[in-house]
Amino acid sequence: MTQQTMRRTLLLPATLCGLAILTVFNAFAPAEEGMWTLDNPPLKQLKERYGFEPSKEWLEHLRLSSVRFNDGGSGSFVSSHGLALTNHHVALGQLQKVSTAEKDYVKDGFYARTLAEELKCPDLELNVLVAQEDVSARVQGAAKKGMTGEAALKARKSEMAAIEKESLEKTGFRSDVVTLYNGGEYWLYRYKKYTDIRLVFAPEQLIAFFGGDPDNFTYPRHDIDFALVRVYENDKPIDSSTHHLKWSEHGADADELVFVSGHPGSTDRQTPMVGLEQQRDQMMPRAIKSRERRVAVLRQYAARGSEESRQAQRPIFYLENTLKAFGGMFDGLKDPELITKKRNDENEFRRLIAANPEWKKAYGSAWDEYAVSSKNYLTQMKPYRYRRLTGSNLVNMALQVVQYVAEVKKPDGERLDGFHDSQLESTRFELFSPAPVYPGMEEALLANTLQEAVDELGPNDPYVKAVLGGRSAAEVAKEVVAGTKVADPAFRKSLVEGGESAVQSCPDPLIALVRRADPFVREMHKWFEDKVESIEVAAGEKIGKARFEAYGKSAYPDATFTLRLSYGSVKGYPMNGTQAPPWTTFYGLYDRAHSFGLKYPYELPSRYVERKGMLDLSTPLDFVSTCDIIGGNSGSPVVNRKGEFVGLIFDGNIESLVGDYVYSGEKNRAVAVHSSALIEVLRKLYDAGGLADELQGTGGK
Amino acid sequence: MTQQTMRRTLLLPATLCGLAILTVFNAFAPAEEGMWTLDNPPLKQLKERYGFEPSKEWLEHLRLSSVRFNDGGSGSFVSSHGLALTNHHVALGQLQKVSTAEKDYVKDGFYARTLAEELKCPDLELNVLVAQEDVSARVQGAAKKGMTGEAALKARKSEMAAIEKESLEKTGFRSDVVTLYNGGEYWLYRYKKYTDIRLVFAPEQLIAFFGGDPDNFTYPRHDIDFALVRVYENDKPIDSSTHHLKWSEHGADADELVFVSGHPGSTDRQTPMVGLEQQRDQMMPRAIKSRERRVAVLRQYAARGSEESRQAQRPIFYLENTLKAFGGMFDGLKDPELITKKRNDENEFRRLIAANPEWKKAYGSAWDEYAVSSKNYLTQMKPYRYRRLTGSNLVNMALQVVQYVAEVKKPDGERLDGFHDSQLESTRFELFSPAPVYPGMEEALLANTLQEAVDELGPNDPYVKAVLGGRSAAEVAKEVVAGTKVADPAFRKSLVEGGESAVQSCPDPLIALVRRADPFVREMHKWFEDKVESIEVAAGEKIGKARFEAYGKSAYPDATFTLRLSYGSVKGYPMNGTQAPPWTTFYGLYDRAHSFGLKYPYELPSRYVERKGMLDLSTPLDFVSTCDIIGGNSGSPVVNRKGEFVGLIFDGNIESLVGDYVYSGEKNRAVAVHSSALIEVLRKLYDAGGLADELQGTGGK
Repeated sequence: MTQQTMRRTLLLPATLCGLAILTVFNAFAPAEEGMWTLDNPPLKQLKERYGFEPSKEWLEHLRLSSVRFNDGGSGSFVSSHGLALTNHHVALGQLQKVSTAEKDYVKDGFYARTLAEELKCPDLELNVLVAQEDVSARVQGAAKKGMTGEAALKARKSEMAAIEKESLEKTGFRSDVVTLYNGGEYWLYRYKKYTDIRLVFAPEQLIAFFGGDPDNFTYPRHDIDFALVRVYENDKPIDSSTHHLKWSEHGADADELVFVSGHPGSTDRQTPMVGLEQQRDQMMPRAIKSRERRVAVLRQYAARGSEESRQAQRPIFYLENTLKAFGGMFDGLKDPELITKKRNDENEFRRLIAANPEWKKAYGSAWDEYAVSSKNYLTQMKPYRYRRLTGSNLVNMALQVVQYVAEVKKPDGERLDGFHDSQLESTRFELFSPAPVYPGMEEALLANTLQEAVDELGPNDPYVKAVLGGRSAAEVAKEVVAGTKVADPAFRKSLVEGGESAVQSCPDPLIALVRRADPFVREMHKWFEDKVESIEVAAGEKIGKARFEAYGKSAYPDATFTLRLSYGSVKGYPMNGTQAPPWTTFYGLYDRAHSFGLKYPYELPSRYVERKGMLDLSTPLDFVSTCDIIGGNSGSPVVNRKGEFVGLIFDGNIESLVGDYVYSGEKNRAVAVHSSALIEVLRKLYDAGGLADELQGTGGK
Repeated sequence: MTQQTMRRTLLLPATLCGLAILTVFNAFAPAEEGMWTLDNPPLKQLKERYGFEPSKEWLEHLRLSSVRFNDGGSGSFVSSHGLALTNHHVALGQLQKVSTAEKDYVKDGFYARTLAEELKCPDLELNVLVAQEDVSARVQGAAKKGMTGEAALKARKSEMAAIEKESLEKTGFRSDVVTLYNGGEYWLYRYKKYTDIRLVFAPEQLIAFFGGDPDNFTYPRHDIDFALVRVYENDKPIDSSTHHLKWSEHGADADELVFVSGHPGSTDRQTPMVGLEQQRDQMMPRAIKSRERRVAVLRQYAARGSEESRQAQRPIFYLENTLKAFGGMFDGLKDPELITKKRNDENEFRRLIAANPEWKKAYGSAWDEYAVSSKNYLTQMKPYRYRRLTGSNLVNMALQVVQYVAEVKKPDGERLDGFHDSQLESTRFELFSPAPVYPGMEEALLANTLQEAVDELGPNDPYVKAVLGGRSAAEVAKEVVAGTKVADPAFRKSLVEGGESAVQSCPDPLIALVRRADPFVREMHKWFEDKVESIEVAAGEKIGKARFEAYGKSAYPDATFTLRLSYGSVKGYPMNGTQAPPWTTFYGLYDRAHSFGLKYPYELPSRYVERKGMLDLSTPLDFVSTCDIIGGNSGSPVVNRKGEFVGLIFDGNIESLVGDYVYSGEKNRAVAVHSSALIEVLRKLYDAGGLADELQGTGGK
């Protein structure tokens, strides 16, 4: 189960703190390692290892058939009529938003037999990468000689915002400047953006997430983790006849060369050792503790009743998923072998740089500078981490409203991320989402985040005093959630349209709470930019350039939730004293279910019991490949040499969790649903032959 | 896959050297640890943890229903008419001996539909433990005060032989004196002995050993590893109506209390650290190297053709099995956590002894004395290990002949083990076996053992000179095997009956070769007894007694291939980031087969493909329990509280391999075939309803 949840507000920065910003490229890519940008595909490796030379057209077709799901996943066009395929767990957020106490599409699944029955996703944006342009010279040139780190960072950010705005105005495409190779390169990515996305099909969660949290991030696996949406423009399905993936007749075969085209979220493969140590010793333990706390609160809430349980299901799922992934990453950071390897690599690289006087002068100090940012971080770690109002969707929206009206008054280059002109449309789309809000759950989450601040910072912390005013966290949360109208999208819209004066004079208790918190949030953000991020970025850029000098552009940049190509082969691996097979079958699904007496999370949806006899149980179900993926790749298509769809990425094995820091070709595996399994269940269990026809190109709407 | 191969000649002492002789008991038995003798069952633990109090009759019935297979495994009576159940891999030796190039019962399986069709095993002896008597006082009293270590060892051995002989003459039962608790106790075990054993049923090896070497010693597992033999006396099936295991209607259920009654071969749980370190650093690497060499030779031989492949199958199977087990044990010995734990336990025990002046005086020097034996061992390790003619069955028989005629002339107490009066009948039964000998394979193995001696000892070693006489190993092996008549049981019998003069004057080239080797073998054996074993035994006895003093007789002795009772519950365990289920099903068998494209070792016998539709695929196939077992337990029955048969032990999981040194309750699991699976295949795939009826007590012969 791999998913990177993209977050857009100041309150929810990248995974563990600013460290994920660092993106350096790996100079020694062994085996089938690598998440390659489409401008620099691993042509040499493919030719040498597989005798395969993808044409420009092959690459372009794959790029234009690939889709980014902006709430954190990947996908692809799989029919001529705008049908896009992703994971059930990527679509889960939308499925829950269109569900009600009466109609639970998460539990029961969903199938629109006609276009009319398709259900509009309240706030899902899809992106297709249509153009890439190297803007390194402009961004890097913006930081003039003699500027301080802070000023240089500001100048760069301002230039990036300007490039994005110009591009948006000129082309109308969503335009993002992406930092690659740790600042070694900056690229402008232009996306075709879709916001009218409608649900077409989802299986029951029991089968999509068969085995639940225990089997999550493991293999052999038996999940049918998929969902289908249709992309509309002008109230009509788009014409995707030119760029969609043709369905393979047989699907993935053992040992064959396959590719994954998707959007890995972030990796730390080039983070200096000092940064990794800080993650291990400071950030990771706190990140885990916070999430464990939140899961406990949600479990308590879910225990109140079946409707509460339904509401809490999705956030619990994401938190457990994150916790299991963090556990694996944490284990990796504590693995002496891995740490020794990474330290040796870094020492070797630093020796190389130190040996050349010119390089030494230009880049030699970078690691010590980076260490300063880590040291600085420690001085304010607790206030930076706990003076936030994280974890409640409702509070998050209130904060976005309060910050929105203040930010848009500033020059574009000076705004917080998420509020640049080029981003406003996406931000408003999300902020005005009609998706339901569950006040009981929001209250529990808000009480938790307030109480966590008390527990970690003490009752005398100025932020704690400001938000609580001497009362208990539970009292404040109860009163605020009971009295607020922020749950109403029209109210949020009216405030945003009313501007700063409307927000400042608004008597809504949640808006008032956020107004009291906002100065602290901004203060800590500024501190982080000045004392941590700016130093990290400057040092990181030096390290990135040093790598270019020393090794050339022979490898791939750390992941950035932008389109990447991975390659590898369908292959089992040594496991548990024996070998994991290249794929599982439907036999394995029934084995695992009966091995645990059909008890949750090994329960089967009733159709899987009643219609079992219709299935060819030897059909491949899930398979593994050596492709290098990470959270955010969820829903990525797996294609063969012909560019045909052969599988759907939905997870990595337990051995891949360390992939945040290092790729192990021997045991790291990407887990995918086999294309044949999708057709098998659509036709035989769901009476969805029409949909199967559309996928296989033998019919359509 | 667990099996202890019992060896009886001087040339093939216990697993790794004399160290396995050491049997001390474990004073702190956590969780469900323990292989308990039937005179000292874990009544307290069973009552406290399970509220279960087995009666004397319950224990006696289980003992008298349990059977030792003297070629290295365990089993049980399972019908009124002498039917005994064990593993296919325990019966494998006999199956191969009755097979020919034309009729391969290993490959095709075997089923005697009538008593007349049952096939007599050429050299299988079964034992049932009918009585146990504590003879500690007599054995320990034989070593008088003031005797040297060597003299004391001799005196004890002589006394043990005398006790065995007396018992045999008095009762007619096979009589073995067993060293328990590291010499803390000696017990006389009397066995009812059966030698007319006939094969009744065996499935195809493909399904008995499904998954082959890769899946061996792992779980989840899908083997149907069983065979049925019938025990005869006076050419009639014995009447086992009083003592056989009733077949359970439903078989093992999740979480239920179960027992294993079998014959664990040997453990080193109480070996002092210095002994374990020697195993790790000296013995284990050489033991592995020797076996790898032998496997390579056999693979080369098997590659010559299909008949050669058939001949080599069984020895390759056993060697691979041993190598995988050794690998796990070796990993255990290299595991810093395990080593630290064992060292701390030992230090704590030694502190306790040192703190009591009386104990200190009596036992305090034992560890240092033990260390002397380890040091001595190093001085002659290579000649001791390589001046042998191991690894060829034919050569082994020749050596037994040569030693037999010399040994029987000595007083009983002075003979080599295997040639005491009480043992002669069993030795002759095995030595005169009509089982086929394959000269080509024997030649390859003899050439290998001779060449190994050259490689390890050098061409100028006196033993090498004596056996090769300046020629090459290959030449000598070729000539000797071509010219010998030792393959003929009548020839062997004539030599044994002709006595020493017949053997000394025999011109047979193999007998001549063995005559040249025998003095070296004896010399090294004597050196080992004098300089290693006698010191170990004396030190070990002190340690054993020290434990009795310090902790009382509250635990179990190390394994000794004698009857033991283990208990535990049917339970999965944490594995590979998720959980292993309590059992697998037939669905899992088909899953694994199809996951590997039905390729060897995941190929299925044709009846499993053709008749698949007849099976209830949700039937439990293999299951795991926390029972503490080790090699030698292969074929042991698993019984429930009612003493009913619920499963058939055939293996331990990969986490159990370290069980030679320590039991881990969290992950150590015994793997068994579920009783329901046996009935399912007998009735539905093999048309063996009559046999199933006999097992279930609903019919019989």
